[in-house]
Amino acid sequence: MSGHTSPDSAGTGAEDIRLDLDRATRRGYPEAVLCDTKTVDQVSRVARAWRESGDPGPVLFTRADDDRAAAVRQQLPGAHHDRLARIVVWPPQPPEAQGGHVVVLAAGTSDLPVAHEATITARHLGRRTRLVVDVGVAGLHRLLDHVQELRDPAVRAIVVAAGMDGALPSVVAGLVRVPVVAVPTSVGYGAAFRGVAALLTMLNSCAPGVAVVNIDNGYGAGHLAAQIAAPGP
Amino acid sequence: MSGHTSPDSAGTGAEDIRLDLDRATRRGYPEAVLCDTKTVDQVSRVARAWRESGDPGPVLFTRADDDRAAAVRQQLPGAHHDRLARIVVWPPQPPEAQGGHVVVLAAGTSDLPVAHEATITARHLGRRTRLVVDVGVAGLHRLLDHVQELRDPAVRAIVVAAGMDGALPSVVAGLVRVPVVAVPTSVGYGAAFRGVAALLTMLNSCAPGVAVVNIDNGYGAGHLAAQIAAPGP
Amino acid sequence: MSGHTSPDSAGTGAEDIRLDLDRATRRGYPEAVLCDTKTVDQVSRVARAWRESGDPGPVLFTRADDDRAAAVRQQLPGAHHDRLARIVVWPPQPPEAQGGHVVVLAAGTSDLPVAHEATITARHLGRRTRLVVDVGVAGLHRLLDHVQELRDPAVRAIVVAAGMDGALPSVVAGLVRVPVVAVPTSVGYGAAFRGVAALLTMLNSCAPGVAVVNIDNGYGAGHLAAQIAAPGP
Amino acid sequence: MSGHTSPDSAGTGAEDIRLDLDRATRRGYPEAVLCDTKTVDQVSRVARAWRESGDPGPVLFTRADDDRAAAVRQQLPGAHHDRLARIVVWPPQPPEAQGGHVVVLAAGTSDLPVAHEATITARHLGRRTRLVVDVGVAGLHRLLDHVQELRDPAVRAIVVAAGMDGALPSVVAGLVRVPVVAVPTSVGYGAAFRGVAALLTMLNSCAPGVAVVNIDNGYGAGHLAAQIAAPGP
Amino acid sequence: MSGHTSPDSAGTGAEDIRLDLDRATRRGYPEAVLCDTKTVDQVSRVARAWRESGDPGPVLFTRADDDRAAAVRQQLPGAHHDRLARIVVWPPQPPEAQGGHVVVLAAGTSDLPVAHEATITARHLGRRTRLVVDVGVAGLHRLLDHVQELRDPAVRAIVVAAGMDGALPSVVAGLVRVPVVAVPTSVGYGAAFRGVAALLTMLNSCAPGVAVVNIDNGYGAGHLAAQIAAPGP
Amino acid sequence: MSGHTSPDSAGTGAEDIRLDLDRATRRGYPEAVLCDTKTVDQVSRVARAWRESGDPGPVLFTRADDDRAAAVRQQLPGAHHDRLARIVVWPPQPPEAQGGHVVVLAAGTSDLPVAHEATITARHLGRRTRLVVDVGVAGLHRLLDHVQELRDPAVRAIVVAAGMDGALPSVVAGLVRVPVVAVPTSVGYGAAFRGVAALLTMLNSCAPGVAVVNIDNGYGAGHLAAQIAAPGP
Amino acid sequence: MSGHTSPDSAGTGAEDIRLDLDRATRRGYPEAVLCDTKTVDQVSRVARAWRESGDPGPVLFTRADDDRAAAVRQQLPGAHHDRLARIVVWPPQPPEAQGGHVVVLAAGTSDLPVAHEATITARHLGRRTRLVVDVGVAGLHRLLDHVQELRDPAVRAIVVAAGMDGALPSVVAGLVRVPVVAVPTSVGYGAAFRGVAALLTMLNSCAPGVAVVNIDNGYGAGHLAAQIAAPGP
Amino acid sequence: MSGHTSPDSAGTGAEDIRLDLDRATRRGYPEAVLCDTKTVDQVSRVARAWRESGDPGPVLFTRADDDRAAAVRQQLPGAHHDRLARIVVWPPQPPEAQGGHVVVLAAGTSDLPVAHEATITARHLGRRTRLVVDVGVAGLHRLLDHVQELRDPAVRAIVVAAGMDGALPSVVAGLVRVPVVAVPTSVGYGAAFRGVAALLTMLNSCAPGVAVVNIDNGYGAGHLAAQIAAPGP
Repeated sequence: MSGHTSPDSAGTGAEDIRLDLDRATRRGYPEAVLCDTKTVDQVSRVARAWRESGDPGPVLFTRADDDRAAAVRQQLPGAHHDRLARIVVWPPQPPEAQGGHVVVLAAGTSDLPVAHEATITARHLGRRTRLVVDVGVAGLHRLLDHVQELRDPAVRAIVVAAGMDGALPSVVAGLVRVPVVAVPTSVGYGAAFRGVAALLTMLNSCAPGVAVVNIDNGYGAGHLAAQIAAPGP
Repeated sequence: MSGHTSPDSAGTGAEDIRLDLDRATRRGYPEAVLCDTKTVDQVSRVARAWRESGDPGPVLFTRADDDRAAAVRQQLPGAHHDRLARIVVWPPQPPEAQGGHVVVLAAGTSDLPVAHEATITARHLGRRTRLVVDVGVAGLHRLLDHVQELRDPAVRAIVVAAGMDGALPSVVAGLVRVPVVAVPTSVGYGAAFRGVAALLTMLNSCAPGVAVVNIDNGYGAGHLAAQIAAPGP
Repeated sequence: MSGHTSPDSAGTGAEDIRLDLDRATRRGYPEAVLCDTKTVDQVSRVARAWRESGDPGPVLFTRADDDRAAAVRQQLPGAHHDRLARIVVWPPQPPEAQGGHVVVLAAGTSDLPVAHEATITARHLGRRTRLVVDVGVAGLHRLLDHVQELRDPAVRAIVVAAGMDGALPSVVAGLVRVPVVAVPTSVGYGAAFRGVAALLTMLNSCAPGVAVVNIDNGYGAGHLAAQIAAPGP
Repeated sequence: MSGHTSPDSAGTGAEDIRLDLDRATRRGYPEAVLCDTKTVDQVSRVARAWRESGDPGPVLFTRADDDRAAAVRQQLPGAHHDRLARIVVWPPQPPEAQGGHVVVLAAGTSDLPVAHEATITARHLGRRTRLVVDVGVAGLHRLLDHVQELRDPAVRAIVVAAGMDGALPSVVAGLVRVPVVAVPTSVGYGAAFRGVAALLTMLNSCAPGVAVVNIDNGYGAGHLAAQIAAPGP
Repeated sequence: MSGHTSPDSAGTGAEDIRLDLDRATRRGYPEAVLCDTKTVDQVSRVARAWRESGDPGPVLFTRADDDRAAAVRQQLPGAHHDRLARIVVWPPQPPEAQGGHVVVLAAGTSDLPVAHEATITARHLGRRTRLVVDVGVAGLHRLLDHVQELRDPAVRAIVVAAGMDGALPSVVAGLVRVPVVAVPTSVGYGAAFRGVAALLTMLNSCAPGVAVVNIDNGYGAGHLAAQIAAPGP
Repeated sequence: MSGHTSPDSAGTGAEDIRLDLDRATRRGYPEAVLCDTKTVDQVSRVARAWRESGDPGPVLFTRADDDRAAAVRQQLPGAHHDRLARIVVWPPQPPEAQGGHVVVLAAGTSDLPVAHEATITARHLGRRTRLVVDVGVAGLHRLLDHVQELRDPAVRAIVVAAGMDGALPSVVAGLVRVPVVAVPTSVGYGAAFRGVAALLTMLNSCAPGVAVVNIDNGYGAGHLAAQIAAPGP
Repeated sequence: MSGHTSPDSAGTGAEDIRLDLDRATRRGYPEAVLCDTKTVDQVSRVARAWRESGDPGPVLFTRADDDRAAAVRQQLPGAHHDRLARIVVWPPQPPEAQGGHVVVLAAGTSDLPVAHEATITARHLGRRTRLVVDVGVAGLHRLLDHVQELRDPAVRAIVVAAGMDGALPSVVAGLVRVPVVAVPTSVGYGAAFRGVAALLTMLNSCAPGVAVVNIDNGYGAGHLAAQIAAPGP
Repeated sequence: MSGHTSPDSAGTGAEDIRLDLDRATRRGYPEAVLCDTKTVDQVSRVARAWRESGDPGPVLFTRADDDRAAAVRQQLPGAHHDRLARIVVWPPQPPEAQGGHVVVLAAGTSDLPVAHEATITARHLGRRTRLVVDVGVAGLHRLLDHVQELRDPAVRAIVVAAGMDGALPSVVAGLVRVPVVAVPTSVGYGAAFRGVAALLTMLNSCAPGVAVVNIDNGYGAGHLAAQIAAPGP
């Protein structure tokens, strides 16, 4: 809801929150609330508004640190908080899986938070998921061990999270038929420029079939993969 | 006032402050003091100098955290501090409104601090204001609900605060006759580059009539909107 | 084939060409040859090698200007050259369409070359396609006229080509269930930075479900859309 | 109009053109066609469609080189082509002036093309205009000679075109009450980065009241100034 | 002194310090030690080595926070610490002034730390200095009040410290005969990019005679000005 | 002179030229006209206006290609055109030299155009000059052969033109007492970024006393050096 | 090992760790673990897995702060922690030296952490090393004192760590026959852009024979130098 | 040789050329002349000076187009011009090979010019070379076919030329013991940024042992590889 601002905006209460409650209807996927650019109080009020809105359907709170996660769980008891992925999901159990499978690859251990965020998102959007770790191109045999798994006809989308050189999506896309959702991570130092190097690598993949999302955007990667692997009409 | 620096510049007292007291006369709008690049002591001395300068007229202290706001209010009792917008205004009540109306749109809840700063600035520069929240382009119906309000002939300027993709000003400018003041916010992550992505979007608006100001510069947006909506000669 | 380089590398003949003839088998999609970074002679030799390789399957030559297109058509008679899209396809007729439909949107007339390249690519990879032009966000009603068409359950992927502010994919993604493949074009001037502004807008879309490819990469967009809309197992 | 693309898109005729004929009604300002990203043939077809659309109202063709200008004038006889500003206006005479005056400043001779484009645009959008040249900050007295003219109460908007250091808008904004529309030009070399240096200077103006538009976007600057100086309701 | 590193480099003692003791002889100016990239212990050992090196001549420790300043003063008792400028000078009194005068201008209060660093450096390199504050171009009359002072024939160099738009050096250089040393400060936000905007403005000054140094490099600016204003042979 | 623009700005004649004829008086140095951003016709009219302005004093036309140089020489017969430096000077003979000497170093042959432009500028501003070529740091002995020459007390300023790594100014500044004016050139490829790499190197010189000017700005370097080496009061 | 992720990924235990135990066999050099992008717990589990993996061979833990170093040493007792270089090596003693020597140069004291990291890495990869400090180009004589040492035929690779202008590798490469491994450090401020300026300088070295690695990547520099100086077949 | 510049610098003859004739003695490798930043006349004079300098030893002219190559061959009859690599070598035959072998990999046909330049350079610096083409990571099997060849103990350095995603060096470095010299090429479009994307990928290689050189710098890559593979002392 919108309205005239009062002189002290910090005291304006909940009128600065407008839920997009029919999004699930319109788009077919649950709403998500990005937490780290909101205050704890704002996050709490969003969660409360969600609870009070009747039969609101599932919701994800992304980029939730411990304080924001606690605020959500106070309003939506039973919500599940995955600390590594910094995500809170409600209801805690994902829906029954439909459509194709989604495989999520993490190039290294440091890419795990983003890969987990993608995995949990895709699962809570209704896809069967599988996470494979430490398959970076510096040790190619580790990836090659998984090729048959990636080519399983049940797999309809592959998410690849990689930082540093960001080379893994190019290599994977050259091996499979299905789209690769590439999510650069901010892992690296110096000329990695907090994920920009990996982002550029992925945009310039010499293999077609690579869909790029924003740096560290595991939620977006998981969402896109879930859409790609959605059941047919 | 200027002068020779002493060996220990930290002890030079107030001689490093030169107020631009006739700015209101020259430009017709109140002076503003940017606080976050000044020490608490410097802010305090500016506020004191203002008070002691006779009949100084209104003044805004922008980017004021709690410490700097307290320093101002000690020197200018009764000044109003809006914590969300990080602004201190003195006198606390805005002047009587003149000229056209200013509507301020915030694409999302995270853009509220900047939108509030713009709203308060425009109001204290003498315009009637209205703040509308959560009208981002991802849920277009939310914006379309407000079109008649935006086309109200009393409205002479619209401020749009948006981060992430910064797409809202293009859409709004395509719907109305009046200028749109676009203020990119640093909301977003990764390739948002702390507001640069939104800034570029706004500079490249495919609809003419978009006036861009600096990232997170709610004060500048509100000031410009107030000038655009100023009463005619 | 590789080998020792001779002192005059310009005379080394065809041994610098290695076709990836089994790519169609391995990945399920035709090979593509990027022409504008190759000499006319190199392009000609690639086309000849293709013809002489037995039963090679379909092939696309992208970024082909008139000279390179002529060189291809001399080796692969009957190949079709689309000048606006700068693409040569062989055989000239696309395969029978399978899977979901792909809709391609061009924000403006200037985005047509890229949109056409995407359309032709998707069609020659076996998808039914549809191209819609001039639906930029500056005149929102033009897009809204097409919403039902975009929500047609037969549509499994939407390609959006846009330059300047690049705002169209965000708006489209907020309206539909299926993935949006966003391809920034280098249309614009100044701070458009030859497509970088649009690229950043798309990476920062406030609506999830946007898959970004490289600037002006219509081929990549069409390929990705065709993979997304591929028939199920 | 949109439709299925044919195999040879270069032969698709006029169906890739969709005029936004009701823009004047919706927004109150004439339509403009950006020419330099379109082929001569596309420009010609747009102009013809305009002529054939009944009573279409005025139109501007921007970034029109000699070939594109000739194509327009063949379809819209009597249209006026300003070569320096690279603009074609139809009808050739501007409407009767209404609202406030617009002053356009060019920092140097090299900024004239952009300044002219702004001037002609504002005039054809119905404002009285005035162009002042060679008032760069390196010779401050030249600007100071014009201060009273800039403070004329009839003036409601000032456009400032400047390249290189782009410092002029800051200085002008400190001298006047009305909004300054700052348009950076690509004049300069080396670290001017084709207008980026001037763009950043303007976005960081230490004086409030500066509305920035894209590099070399004289059309956008003139349009925005005309909106700002529009007559009151 | 250099040597083989030991396995635990943290315990290698003073052998990682090599003083450039003859720099004063070779270049004619005192040595300076940049502190903020060194540990407190390293700074302390440099100061001790200086003291123990016989008759070492004056030395400046720049970017010294309180801890590093204390470490220096423990080794070089009587050294003077200017906290605002973050500089420690030894001996505390500058040498007798020679050569031309150096005027230092600070565009705003926030530029004072850099301006002070320049002032103290120039003075300890043997020049008479004068510091003038709050003469930014947004209020041009404040600068114009000082023109005669800037044109004083005794003045041989003018340092200008400015952040945000960085426009002041262009304006000053257009008013005087002597070189202007322009030092951009990191004051500003958003598209100021921590001083980059001001840096570019200064490099693109439309008035010749502007010598640019690194962002926030008050020491370098003061040093260069002292060299320019050095007494003739 | 300024005035209302006419509908066809290309026919507006000379009224877009305003000479800064008293610049020599105000600043003490000749006027310079940057040619490459002006049309041949504009350059010609500037030169004619100069000739017709009474007793105008010397003038430099920089970045003048053959056409623009011919246009100048038609209006100012006898003017000297240096093709390598792309500069036209009038009168052709420099004034009698005063003040200190200026040495100009070119790191490599490719830096000669910029070095020449600096040399000619300094000479026509009244300084004795000397040009030394091919002293890049890759062959350090070539530079060391010139050290005594650089330390000649008559030398008051050293210009260093260097592209690629731009390392020469740091090395030179470490060897001499006088200021080094560093001018990066756009020589290099790839990550030289047309002079940006050299520019950054120079701004970050580990030796103080380096005054940086814009990329390829030989005129600015020569002008600054001439000011530094000006005779004392 | 990889597997399905559990709902709470933080509790998934060690299954997110896959050691590349045969790397030493495949590449001939010890494995390294980058610590600062991993949690303390993850580092601890890697170290434990290493210990439990049979006869794992040497390992380096880079970018290890005190907490992570302690975690490693708890699992691999006796491992050596160099705090300045932030590296933990196990076993603590390097292998017997083979092949050519590696000399490591640090331009200044502030470059020591990176230089130490390179030195320790090269030594634990089996090379004899030597570290020389404070040989920056601002005092060229310091470097020239070491020329014979650098030209010692036993030396097969020289690592140069430098921040700020990054000019040292160019100068060194011009003096010697062997490859120079250049590692830019993030030392500097403002336009040093955290090592980018030095990186560009090194990539543009006017002397051939410079091998560049990532900013602050002392480990990579030492590793590359050790490979270059490896004993012949 | 250096000297006073004459008024018309274009006529100054050969005195702007200083050969570094003892470079071969000092560094052990032939001199190279970068041609594309020099005029044809300058290149010709360099070649003549080389011929006339007694017994000058071998020389390479890089980035030589047809005109510059002809100028060289007129002065140094018999010199060999490789047009693809744009290099002229004199004498035409390489010296007898010594030391280890150098393998050069080109990711795609478009990378051939740079790969050839590296190959020819290494061969004329005295190494045995081998060039392998079309082994990009999009078709991994093509690279894997060559692994034994890359692991041949006679190979001491591997050059990898790659554009677009630049991912090949990371993969290669993970497979071999010897250093990989990575040379990014400007092949690609859009966000390849003329080689910057590939450059960043290579600097961030997740496998150690990658030595990066400048974009398109085949000469530098070949030179560095030749140094790495030089015979032992």
